[in-house]
Amino acid sequence: MKALVYHGPGKKAWEEVPDAAIQEPADVVVRVDTTTICGTDLHILQGDVAAVTEGRILGHEAVGTVTEVGEAVTGFAPGDRVLVPAITKCGRCAYCQRGMPSHCQTVGGIGWIFGHLIDGTQAETVRVPYAETSLYAVPDSVTNEQAIFLADSLPTGYEVGVLAGQVRPGDTVAVVGAGAVGLSAILTTGLWDTNKFRLEKALEFGATDAVEVGPATVAEVIALTDGLGVDVSIEAVGYPETLLTAASLVRPGGSIANIGVHGTPVELPMQDMWIQNVRLTMGLVDTVSIPTLLKMVASGRIPAEKMGTHSFTFDQMDEAYDVFKNAAANSALKVVITPA
Amino acid sequence: MKALVYHGPGKKAWEEVPDAAIQEPADVVVRVDTTTICGTDLHILQGDVAAVTEGRILGHEAVGTVTEVGEAVTGFAPGDRVLVPAITKCGRCAYCQRGMPSHCQTVGGIGWIFGHLIDGTQAETVRVPYAETSLYAVPDSVTNEQAIFLADSLPTGYEVGVLAGQVRPGDTVAVVGAGAVGLSAILTTGLWDTNKFRLEKALEFGATDAVEVGPATVAEVIALTDGLGVDVSIEAVGYPETLLTAASLVRPGGSIANIGVHGTPVELPMQDMWIQNVRLTMGLVDTVSIPTLLKMVASGRIPAEKMGTHSFTFDQMDEAYDVFKNAAANSALKVVITPA
Amino acid sequence: MKALVYHGPGKKAWEEVPDAAIQEPADVVVRVDTTTICGTDLHILQGDVAAVTEGRILGHEAVGTVTEVGEAVTGFAPGDRVLVPAITKCGRCAYCQRGMPSHCQTVGGIGWIFGHLIDGTQAETVRVPYAETSLYAVPDSVTNEQAIFLADSLPTGYEVGVLAGQVRPGDTVAVVGAGAVGLSAILTTGLWDTNKFRLEKALEFGATDAVEVGPATVAEVIALTDGLGVDVSIEAVGYPETLLTAASLVRPGGSIANIGVHGTPVELPMQDMWIQNVRLTMGLVDTVSIPTLLKMVASGRIPAEKMGTHSFTFDQMDEAYDVFKNAAANSALKVVITPA
Amino acid sequence: MKALVYHGPGKKAWEEVPDAAIQEPADVVVRVDTTTICGTDLHILQGDVAAVTEGRILGHEAVGTVTEVGEAVTGFAPGDRVLVPAITKCGRCAYCQRGMPSHCQTVGGIGWIFGHLIDGTQAETVRVPYAETSLYAVPDSVTNEQAIFLADSLPTGYEVGVLAGQVRPGDTVAVVGAGAVGLSAILTTGLWDTNKFRLEKALEFGATDAVEVGPATVAEVIALTDGLGVDVSIEAVGYPETLLTAASLVRPGGSIANIGVHGTPVELPMQDMWIQNVRLTMGLVDTVSIPTLLKMVASGRIPAEKMGTHSFTFDQMDEAYDVFKNAAANSALKVVITPA
Repeated sequence: MKALVYHGPGKKAWEEVPDAAIQEPADVVVRVDTTTICGTDLHILQGDVAAVTEGRILGHEAVGTVTEVGEAVTGFAPGDRVLVPAITKCGRCAYCQRGMPSHCQTVGGIGWIFGHLIDGTQAETVRVPYAETSLYAVPDSVTNEQAIFLADSLPTGYEVGVLAGQVRPGDTVAVVGAGAVGLSAILTTGLWDTNKFRLEKALEFGATDAVEVGPATVAEVIALTDGLGVDVSIEAVGYPETLLTAASLVRPGGSIANIGVHGTPVELPMQDMWIQNVRLTMGLVDTVSIPTLLKMVASGRIPAEKMGTHSFTFDQMDEAYDVFKNAAANSALKVVITPA
Repeated sequence: MKALVYHGPGKKAWEEVPDAAIQEPADVVVRVDTTTICGTDLHILQGDVAAVTEGRILGHEAVGTVTEVGEAVTGFAPGDRVLVPAITKCGRCAYCQRGMPSHCQTVGGIGWIFGHLIDGTQAETVRVPYAETSLYAVPDSVTNEQAIFLADSLPTGYEVGVLAGQVRPGDTVAVVGAGAVGLSAILTTGLWDTNKFRLEKALEFGATDAVEVGPATVAEVIALTDGLGVDVSIEAVGYPETLLTAASLVRPGGSIANIGVHGTPVELPMQDMWIQNVRLTMGLVDTVSIPTLLKMVASGRIPAEKMGTHSFTFDQMDEAYDVFKNAAANSALKVVITPA
Repeated sequence: MKALVYHGPGKKAWEEVPDAAIQEPADVVVRVDTTTICGTDLHILQGDVAAVTEGRILGHEAVGTVTEVGEAVTGFAPGDRVLVPAITKCGRCAYCQRGMPSHCQTVGGIGWIFGHLIDGTQAETVRVPYAETSLYAVPDSVTNEQAIFLADSLPTGYEVGVLAGQVRPGDTVAVVGAGAVGLSAILTTGLWDTNKFRLEKALEFGATDAVEVGPATVAEVIALTDGLGVDVSIEAVGYPETLLTAASLVRPGGSIANIGVHGTPVELPMQDMWIQNVRLTMGLVDTVSIPTLLKMVASGRIPAEKMGTHSFTFDQMDEAYDVFKNAAANSALKVVITPA
Repeated sequence: MKALVYHGPGKKAWEEVPDAAIQEPADVVVRVDTTTICGTDLHILQGDVAAVTEGRILGHEAVGTVTEVGEAVTGFAPGDRVLVPAITKCGRCAYCQRGMPSHCQTVGGIGWIFGHLIDGTQAETVRVPYAETSLYAVPDSVTNEQAIFLADSLPTGYEVGVLAGQVRPGDTVAVVGAGAVGLSAILTTGLWDTNKFRLEKALEFGATDAVEVGPATVAEVIALTDGLGVDVSIEAVGYPETLLTAASLVRPGGSIANIGVHGTPVELPMQDMWIQNVRLTMGLVDTVSIPTLLKMVASGRIPAEKMGTHSFTFDQMDEAYDVFKNAAANSALKVVITPA
C-alpha cells in the first residue's frame, strides 16, 4: 500500500510500504476512506516530537472501513464503517476506567499512539490495536466529511476547552485562536449564538495572526464584559503569547482552558496571577465525548462538515500539507483527504 | 397607603394600611413601581403556608424607587431605581458568606420573608430590611417590565433549574412545566435554541395540563434522546405527578432538578430509582445570579419582558389574581402590576 | 462442580452443576477461592428480584484463580489471582467510556449481571465475561480475606456514599446504618477519625435496629452539629424509615447519599424538603475505584479484613446464609466463605 | 496609641500615632488583644508591594475587643470579642454574593485592605470598615491564641489549598512547604493522619530549604504513590522552584493548588505539562470558611494553637519580626503578639 512516511525533520514521502496487518488478537485493520492533517503533524515534521522516529507513518485521524478483525474482536466486522479516533484505549487500566484514556497506561502511558508510537492513518490502511474499546461505529446519518473531525478537533475543543473550562449556561467565553480547535470549542459551546457580537468578535479575534494580538485587543474584550473579564478563556493556539493573552482576559474566579500544544515553556506572570483566584486547565483529549458528538452531528446541532475547507486525494498529500501549513494565507481550516 | 392584605384562607383585600416606614438603621423604604404575582401567593391564599398570618401584606417581587433610607444605609439613596428580590440577606451569616442566602440565618432562617414573615411588595410602598445587601440597582438599559422578572422567576429557573441541574454545553434538557419558572429555565439555558424540535416539544409539553402528561409523552421524550433519557430533567410545577414525570425522563447518570414548590409528600419509586445513578436537587432561589442576569437582559441575551403577558394597575389587583390563578385558560404567564 | 442454585422464593441448594466453561472469546474461568454473601442475595431469595430465574447460581463477589482464558484474552493467564467484582463492564459503550459501567449498555444495560442475569460466584468456578475489562489482579500484599470486600461493599460505600455525597475535608458526616456498606462508607471517609465522638455515635446509631431510630436520635445528631444538621448524610440500609432519617439529618445545602437497595417506594416529604437546597443521590456501584482501594488496603490505610466477622466453608453455605440473614443477632458484618 | 508604621523599604517603627476612630457608619473600632506577622508583611517591608505607601500601619490579622461601633452597626457592641480577618467584605457586591469576597468590588477590588490600602492590625487599636459583614464573633471555647490563626493562615491553607485543590477522601496529597500555610493545609486536610509516613514525609519535605529540594526528592514522592504522582499537590511557599516541584509531583488528571504569594514570573514547562490533564489553581483567601474552622477548633478537631511557636509583647515588635523573618533558623512557625 501507499502511506505518508516520516524520514526525519522536514522530510516525508507518500511511498510504498507493507500493508497494515493484524498483529494481536484485539487488532482490526481499517481501509482509510478519509483522513486529515493535524497541527501536531506539522510539529512532528519539524522534528519537535522526539518519540517519532524515522520510518513512522504519520496521522492520527481517520474514517474508514473495517477489512479484517483479530480473533479477539467481536464488536466489529469487515465492512463496518468506523471512526478511528486520535486516542487508543485499553478500556481496563485505572485511567480508562475513570474515563481518562488520554493517559491509558496500557497502550503507552499516553493514549495518542497513531503516527506517534505506532504507524498512523495517513495511509491506505491502518492497524488499530485495542480496536473494540477504541473504534466507533459511524451512523448512516453522519458523512465521512463530518465524522473525520470527530477524530480529534471537535472532541478536543469540547473536552479540553468547553468541559475542562467548566463553561456553564450564562457564562461569557473568549476563544483565543479560531483555528480548527478553537472553532470546535465555539461550535460545541453552541449556545452562545444569540450573543452574535461576542462570538463574531472571538472569531475575528482568533483569525488574526496571534502575534498581532495586542494590549488594545485585551482591553476591548474586557470592555465587552463587565470590565472584569470573561468567565472562561479558552486558548486554542499553543504559543506563550496566546496563553498569556487568554490569561489576561479572564475575570477573578474564572477559568483558563489551555487546548494548545506547546513547544516551549511559558513564563506565567504568577506575581500578578496568584491573587486572581483563577484555574488553568490543560490536557490531551480523551475522546470519550465522541458518542455525544456523533449524536449532535447526526441531529444537525453541530455542522461539523464546515470545518473542512479544502479537499485533496491521497496522491496530493504534499499539496495538502502545504495548504494546511499555510492555513491563514489559504483561508484553510482543515483539509479532507480521500483516495483518488 | 394601599396594599393587598391577607385575611385568612381565601380572603384578601386591596385596602388602606399605614405607610411603610424605616424601623431599623439598615432599612430602606421603596415606592413600588412594578410588582407581580407568584404561584406561592396563590398557595398562601389557600391557607397552605402556616407562617403567613392574617393582616400580612402579600407579595415578594418588586421594582421601585427608594424614598427613604435608614441611617446605616450608604449604598442607596432616595431616587435610586431598585430591584427588590424575593430573598432578603444579611450578607454576614455563614450561609450568606457561602453564597447561599436562601437560608440566611439572620433574617429568619430562610431568606424569603417578604409577604411571608414581614409585609410584602403588593403595596404602594415596602420596607426593605438589610437593604444594602439585599437590593439591586437597576441599570438604565433594563426596563421595569424586564427587571420585575428578575426578582424571582428568572433566577429561580436559572439557579434551581439550570445550575443545580448542572446543565453543561451539549446536554439534552427536558423541562416539565412551561410556566413562568419553567420558561425561565429554558430562557437561561439559552443555548439549546438550535435544537428547536426538542425545545418546542418541551414548551408544548409544559403548556398542557400537568395531569394530562401520560406514558406516551414520556416514551416520546425518551425516543427523542438516545433511548435512555435526557441528561437533565427540570421539574417546574410542584406536583407529585410532574416530579415523577421529570424523574422518568432522565437517563442513568443524569440530574433531576426540582424547582416546583410542593404541598404534599411525593411517593418516589425508590425501588426503581436507587439503581439509576441519578441526582435529585431541590431548593429555594438564592438570587445571587441577579447581577449576571441583569447583564444578560441589558445585552439583549434574555428577552425577560416576554414573560409579562398581562398588565394591570394596583386597583385591578383582584382581576390580576383572577387572571393569574387561571393562567392556562387565560394564556397568561406572568402579570405586570403598576400604579394607575 | 458444586454451586448454590436458586430454586424460587425461599429455596436454594448447594448442589452439583456443570463446570463453568469458556463461551465467548473474551471469557475467563475463575476458580473461586473466597466468596461472600450480599444483602441483595437475601432479597433475591425472597423472590424480590424478578430477573433472577430458577436455576440461577447466586453471588456476585469473589476472589479466585484464573484456570482458563478465552482466545481474545491477553491480559490474564491461568494461575493469576484475581478479584471478580460485582460489576461486569465491556469498556467500550458510552457508559463505560464515561467511567460509569454500572450502566454498561453491552452486558445488559446494567453492570450487575453475576447471580442476576448470568450464573454467579457462590460456586466452585465461575465464568467471567468481558474479563479483560472486568477482572482486577490482586497484589501479593492484599489477602483474599481483604480483597473479597472490594468486590462490592467497599467500593459501594466509597463511590455511592462518600464520593456521590461529595464529602470534603472538614465536613461532618452521618451514616445511617452501620452494616457492611455503612461501615465501608465510614472506612473510606477515613479521615474523620480524630472526631471519635461523632463516628462512634454513627456506629452505635447504625448498629441499632433501624426501626428503633426515633425523633430523639435525630435531635441528638442535629445537636452534635451546629444545630442545622450534617453536611453529608449517608443512607446505608434501604428502608423508607432510614432514608427519611438520613434526609432529616442534613443541613440546608447539604447532601443525602442513598446507598441502600430499596424494595418499595419512599414517601418523600417534598412539602418540607423542596426549600432545603439539598441534593439526593443514589445509584449502583461502578467499581472503578477498585484500583485506588486496592492500594489503600495494600498500604494499610483501610483494614478491609475487619469486615469479615464469620468464616465458613462451601459445604456450610446454608449456615453462612443463616448467620448473615440474622446479622444483628449474630454480631455479624460479612461472612467469608472458602473451599474446605 | 502605638502602632507599627511602615517608612519605606526596610524601615518600620513601633511609634505613637493617632487612635483608630470611626469614620463611616459601618465602622467598628477594635482594641487589638492578639496579632501576628504574615509572610506578606515581610514582602511589604522589602518594598515589594507598591500599593503600600509610607506611613501605613502594617498587619492584617487580629483578635480583639470591640470598643466603639458606628451608627450603622447593630450586630456588634462594645465588649464583644472578635476576629478581624485578612479579608474585608461588603457583603453585597457580585463577588461577595457569590461567596468570593477575596475580590470584593466595594472595598477596593480586592478584599485584602488592612496593612495594605488602609491601616492595619499591628497596633493597639484598629478601625474595621464594613464591620458587620467582616468581623466574626469568637466563641468562649476558642482562645485568642487559637483564633488569631483563623485570620489568615488556616483559611488560606484550607480554601486555597485543600478546597481549591479539590481534595477528596482517598486522595494522596503532597504539600510543598510546611510553613504556617502549608501546615494549615495539612491540618485542615486532617483525615490523612493514618497515613503517617506520607505526612511525615511531607512535613520533613517542607521543612527543608526549598532550594534544596532536588530531583531525588521528587522521585521519592513519586515512588510513594503508584509511580504516577499524587492526586493533589499543594504549593505553600511562593517561589518558582517550589511551584515547579509541586507541578512535578502530580499525576495525570490531578490538581496543583498554588497557595504561595509569588513575586516573580514562573517559567512553566508547558511543553511537558500541556498533555498532562492537570489543573493549576491559585488565589487569595476568601475567609468564608472561618465559621466552619471556628467550630472545628472549638471541638478540638484542629489544634490551631500549635501554630504559635513564639510569643512577644507589642514593645518587642522588632524582635518578633526578626524571629519570624528567620523562621527556619528559629524553628518558628507563627509568632503571637499581645499587649504587655
